[in-house]
Amino acid sequence: MLLSVGFLGTSASRPTIERGLSSLAIVREGETMLVDCGEGTQRQMMRYGVSFALGDIFFTHFHADHFLGLPGLLRTLSLQDRTEVLRLWGPRGVLQMVKWAEGAGVERLTFPIEVHEVAPGEAIRRDGYSMIPFPVDHRAPVAVGYALIEEERRGIFDPVRARELGVPEGPLWGRIHRGEAVTLGDGRTIDPSELVGQPRPGRRVVVTGDTRPCQSTIEASRGADLLVHEATFGDEEAARAVETGHTTAREAAEVAAAAGVKRLVLTHFSARYSRDPSELVRQARERFAATSCARDGHEEVVPFADTPAGQS
Amino acid sequence: MLLSVGFLGTSASRPTIERGLSSLAIVREGETMLVDCGEGTQRQMMRYGVSFALGDIFFTHFHADHFLGLPGLLRTLSLQDRTEVLRLWGPRGVLQMVKWAEGAGVERLTFPIEVHEVAPGEAIRRDGYSMIPFPVDHRAPVAVGYALIEEERRGIFDPVRARELGVPEGPLWGRIHRGEAVTLGDGRTIDPSELVGQPRPGRRVVVTGDTRPCQSTIEASRGADLLVHEATFGDEEAARAVETGHTTAREAAEVAAAAGVKRLVLTHFSARYSRDPSELVRQARERFAATSCARDGHEEVVPFADTPAGQS
Repeated sequence: MLLSVGFLGTSASRPTIERGLSSLAIVREGETMLVDCGEGTQRQMMRYGVSFALGDIFFTHFHADHFLGLPGLLRTLSLQDRTEVLRLWGPRGVLQMVKWAEGAGVERLTFPIEVHEVAPGEAIRRDGYSMIPFPVDHRAPVAVGYALIEEERRGIFDPVRARELGVPEGPLWGRIHRGEAVTLGDGRTIDPSELVGQPRPGRRVVVTGDTRPCQSTIEASRGADLLVHEATFGDEEAARAVETGHTTAREAAEVAAAAGVKRLVLTHFSARYSRDPSELVRQARERFAATSCARDGHEEVVPFADTPAGQS
Repeated sequence: MLLSVGFLGTSASRPTIERGLSSLAIVREGETMLVDCGEGTQRQMMRYGVSFALGDIFFTHFHADHFLGLPGLLRTLSLQDRTEVLRLWGPRGVLQMVKWAEGAGVERLTFPIEVHEVAPGEAIRRDGYSMIPFPVDHRAPVAVGYALIEEERRGIFDPVRARELGVPEGPLWGRIHRGEAVTLGDGRTIDPSELVGQPRPGRRVVVTGDTRPCQSTIEASRGADLLVHEATFGDEEAARAVETGHTTAREAAEVAAAAGVKRLVLTHFSARYSRDPSELVRQARERFAATSCARDGHEEVVPFADTPAGQS
């Protein structure tokens, strides 16, 4: 079951020739959702093959570089005669922002919008996973990151042992795998624990949005398979990072190390690193080796921890 | 003196992989102005090297695909610490649109904005030229095109004849060229008509914005050096062009022929022609030979009528 993060815009504050404004697409089992929607997101979606049949947009905060793409996207979805509901999520301010977007002289939308104000820590339950907004530390009235936490998966069914026990192959195997104790024709009862291994953890993907390095990100990211952390600046602008509520690449790596994540992808780069962010990677890897830098169009596939490389 | 039109976005309604939303840059003697500012315009400016020291944006109408790029551009100009005034022009609705753009959660602007509501037919006088909004026929409350009309230039000064008449080379030549009658040391008075030819016409560039083919465009475009006309559709969608208030390539060519323009550039293409608009060119050329199709990044230089090819 595919879980991937596709980077649509990886520039901070303003676009560059190489990088668009903040947005990324999470695709999970054919379901598409965006985190943030900076100006130009709809065109980046076209460029990089992200489905317009998305169901949700999660906003991290309401600085303009994170939401100016919404009115144009709403308009294009209407031109496509969309009828399915679109859910828009964000911290306090989301209602006002959506009202602004709808007031853009956009003609009547062909589909309903649901706007949900999220509360940090309150999980949004979905089919097979939760999206959990968590507080971050940015110079916005409210700013959140999002942690996508999959439910545990069933343990692995042992077909060899099942045959040894004489459980006939077929629907019974499925019932046992789903956790049901089954009585065979000869009166024996087979408990699932005899044939099914321990539940296996789901995957965890964490996206910070704009923030200073902070404890709440570390907590939300414990054991995450992938942490997408902003890294607006390098070491030489550490003071500016403090002043503007952003993070250096090195600080992002320290968060990743403290949280024990598997991989860190940096994004949201100041224009000076747009063309060549290799210095940021170098600085970050001094603290956390499994770091890379996002570029527009890059897709990061998140495998299960127990999946051999090359499968998902 | 350079006059050029740079196409920043040539797609209708929604962007495509190849084409951004409506905007073009007119550059005249180092002065830069935009006509319309669709979503993504600021990034197109970066891509195609259009100066952010622009002074004016002229809006043709207030359908969202023509102005959603304004809030982001205002924000970026502020991040650049701009202090010069930015003038925004448009028909009725421009005040409301700018108010909307300023309400985008954009932080305080570092520069003043002047908003001017234009009236069709009322020339906006500039240094050496006028911008004249003219009414067009589109399904918007008010929609205009713009004609940039340069003032006449002085006639050509005849240095051979000046020497024959014994007018000493130097400041006197300039005074005569500027139209002043000059009395020489020997008492003779030289009238400028003796040395200076007829005034020569300036250049005329006309941009329609969205419209049906209409008489007012023909009138505004008489003898224009360049007509930029929308051509959303081809022959096969002529009915849809009527229905949506747009123009087919063939109709645009008929306007160009009726106005006797020198060159026609088509723009604002429906997505189906985005990749290959050659069919539109073919249809248009059946009515007006000097037709080409804009593409994003294309720059159309407008020479003086009396300038040999290759100069401007």
